[in-house]
Amino acid sequence: MNEIANGITKPTLLVDLVKVNKNIDRMVKKARVNDVILRPHFKTHQSSEIGRLFQERNVDAITVSSVDMAEYFAGNGWRDITIAFPVNPRQLEQINGLARQTKLNILFESLNSYLTVDKRLANGIGAWIKIDTGYHRSGIHWNDLEEISRLTRNIDENRALFFEGILTHAGHTYKAGSVEEIRKIFLETVNRMDLVKNELEAQGYEVKVSIGDTPGCSIVEKFGSVDEIRPGNFVFYDLMQEKLGACSESDIAVAAACPVVAKNLNRNEIVIYGGAVHLSKEFLINTDGDPYYGRITLPINKGWTNAISDCWLSSISQEHGVITASKDLLEMVEIGDLLMILPIHSCLTANLMGKYLTTEGRTIDMASFL
Amino acid sequence: MNEIANGITKPTLLVDLVKVNKNIDRMVKKARVNDVILRPHFKTHQSSEIGRLFQERNVDAITVSSVDMAEYFAGNGWRDITIAFPVNPRQLEQINGLARQTKLNILFESLNSYLTVDKRLANGIGAWIKIDTGYHRSGIHWNDLEEISRLTRNIDENRALFFEGILTHAGHTYKAGSVEEIRKIFLETVNRMDLVKNELEAQGYEVKVSIGDTPGCSIVEKFGSVDEIRPGNFVFYDLMQEKLGACSESDIAVAAACPVVAKNLNRNEIVIYGGAVHLSKEFLINTDGDPYYGRITLPINKGWTNAISDCWLSSISQEHGVITASKDLLEMVEIGDLLMILPIHSCLTANLMGKYLTTEGRTIDMASFL
Repeated sequence: MNEIANGITKPTLLVDLVKVNKNIDRMVKKARVNDVILRPHFKTHQSSEIGRLFQERNVDAITVSSVDMAEYFAGNGWRDITIAFPVNPRQLEQINGLARQTKLNILFESLNSYLTVDKRLANGIGAWIKIDTGYHRSGIHWNDLEEISRLTRNIDENRALFFEGILTHAGHTYKAGSVEEIRKIFLETVNRMDLVKNELEAQGYEVKVSIGDTPGCSIVEKFGSVDEIRPGNFVFYDLMQEKLGACSESDIAVAAACPVVAKNLNRNEIVIYGGAVHLSKEFLINTDGDPYYGRITLPINKGWTNAISDCWLSSISQEHGVITASKDLLEMVEIGDLLMILPIHSCLTANLMGKYLTTEGRTIDMASFL
Repeated sequence: MNEIANGITKPTLLVDLVKVNKNIDRMVKKARVNDVILRPHFKTHQSSEIGRLFQERNVDAITVSSVDMAEYFAGNGWRDITIAFPVNPRQLEQINGLARQTKLNILFESLNSYLTVDKRLANGIGAWIKIDTGYHRSGIHWNDLEEISRLTRNIDENRALFFEGILTHAGHTYKAGSVEEIRKIFLETVNRMDLVKNELEAQGYEVKVSIGDTPGCSIVEKFGSVDEIRPGNFVFYDLMQEKLGACSESDIAVAAACPVVAKNLNRNEIVIYGGAVHLSKEFLINTDGDPYYGRITLPINKGWTNAISDCWLSSISQEHGVITASKDLLEMVEIGDLLMILPIHSCLTANLMGKYLTTEGRTIDMASFL
């Protein structure tokens, strides 16, 4: 890695494939033990090569968050893709084209949404109903069994569609204050999905249950009656997941290598080349109540060290990052050195960085959906 | 624009060139009246075609925030480029290559920074000293005349370099609470720069003064002893600038067209396809103390309407945006419609969107620095 670090001239997203493989192995094993399908969300890495690490472990079904992303992965050989985003009527042509190429599943978040496209869908598309189990972003409320039944009946009667089941994203785990709260949300989510499932099964439908959020899937050991999980972020993890208790810091598999361009001893600050266009403006709040945009580690032979205590990436503008540094770090670091920044939200950082450099020095491409 | 709107399938950054031209004209005129050089910051648009609108008005000097951006614009014919970012020693080879191609100016934010590269610079590079006039991100504090003089002497004695003068970015205008405060910061900035300039001139140096921030340059009418201004954002403006009083809402020249994918009448919410990977997570705080990530307008024939009152883009995740909508908007809008989102920070939104669509339906490319 030292030689690789020498070759880095500008903000670069390093990926530690040893950690990535461990993260994937852990989730694959957990899915197998629980006898659930792992349908990982690929919006985190957006890379066919990272995708192959899942293929090697016999994962053959994936989740994406856009039609373009589905096209990219279909073009890279994936043959079972769920677009876990409310169906966008403006992309019907692309959706129908994809359905001829791959087993495609789409999401109806309401009867209203279904009725905008119901007569224009290609044959053989799988349909999931999005259930709102408490996150309140989209979907039919879990206790609105009448509306859920009505939509199920409509889908079932639509010859173009195959009714897959009910799907939810318990994104409110991201606001949880403790691991116990995440467990509780997970249990509540499964219970609410079970209630819906039982109702629909009583009406004679076959119903699969799909859930997915990295905090829940990472923390919980038993998935109960769930058929399928769709976590995504676990492939890299990040500081947000660490704060939630979904991973340990050593599981974080990406770090942004950023050149030091200034030091200010009076203010205990280090300025790096690395800002909002590299890391995103996602932040967390530290114990002093102040926002931070990343934590600071040093490059070492095999990757990077643990985060250095009392140091924060405390502000960022378009290309600059300002680190509030400990005396130790200030003494250690010179202009021209590299610092390794652990990201708050690896999905957004990866999307901005556009490619990866492995700790062995190999570039891994990712898709661009511009 | 109605026909163009019909063709939009996914989040798309619309640009209104009538507004862009007006914004440019206003700043060009102000610079001329004040007899200062306008060296616009091109990090906002990152586009050779938008750049040409400046060329047409005889602007021939530009500012950029990275070496890669300098290479892009040098490749597009620009022959006088300032990289307004502390010199990054890891990119010296690129910097020296650029210096053979164009009149290149770089920035030294400290003597320390200068000494890491002083003996390795190509001939003919222009050198600016970055002065910290109160923003406290980087640069030598304005009253540390000893350090400024020492660095000036070093640059002056370096045969490879040409001493240009002193440069500052009064970024603290972005935290100002009123137009009056921005005027005050501007005046203070100029006074502090004058003090440094007078000291260096007394030592026999020729010293230009370069300042630049869109709020200051937009609000102030007289630039005093300043030689050069470097605003960038004014080409598009955005909600942050409007809140600061640097522009009116009708000056905002970009808006993100986003498809509506869900409506929730119980929560008064509309979900759009348009999230953090399109708009960035930059936010402002509304009068209720809540964050918002954009404001909502409707597409009309020539572009978009004024922002609709009592509506906010109140949360965003990777691809979703959730709008807190007024009853009027909820009644007006259906799934499949387009809404036009005014961005909080147009530089970050443009960087994420990667290209523009004019309100006449023509695509304008921008650079990618991945």
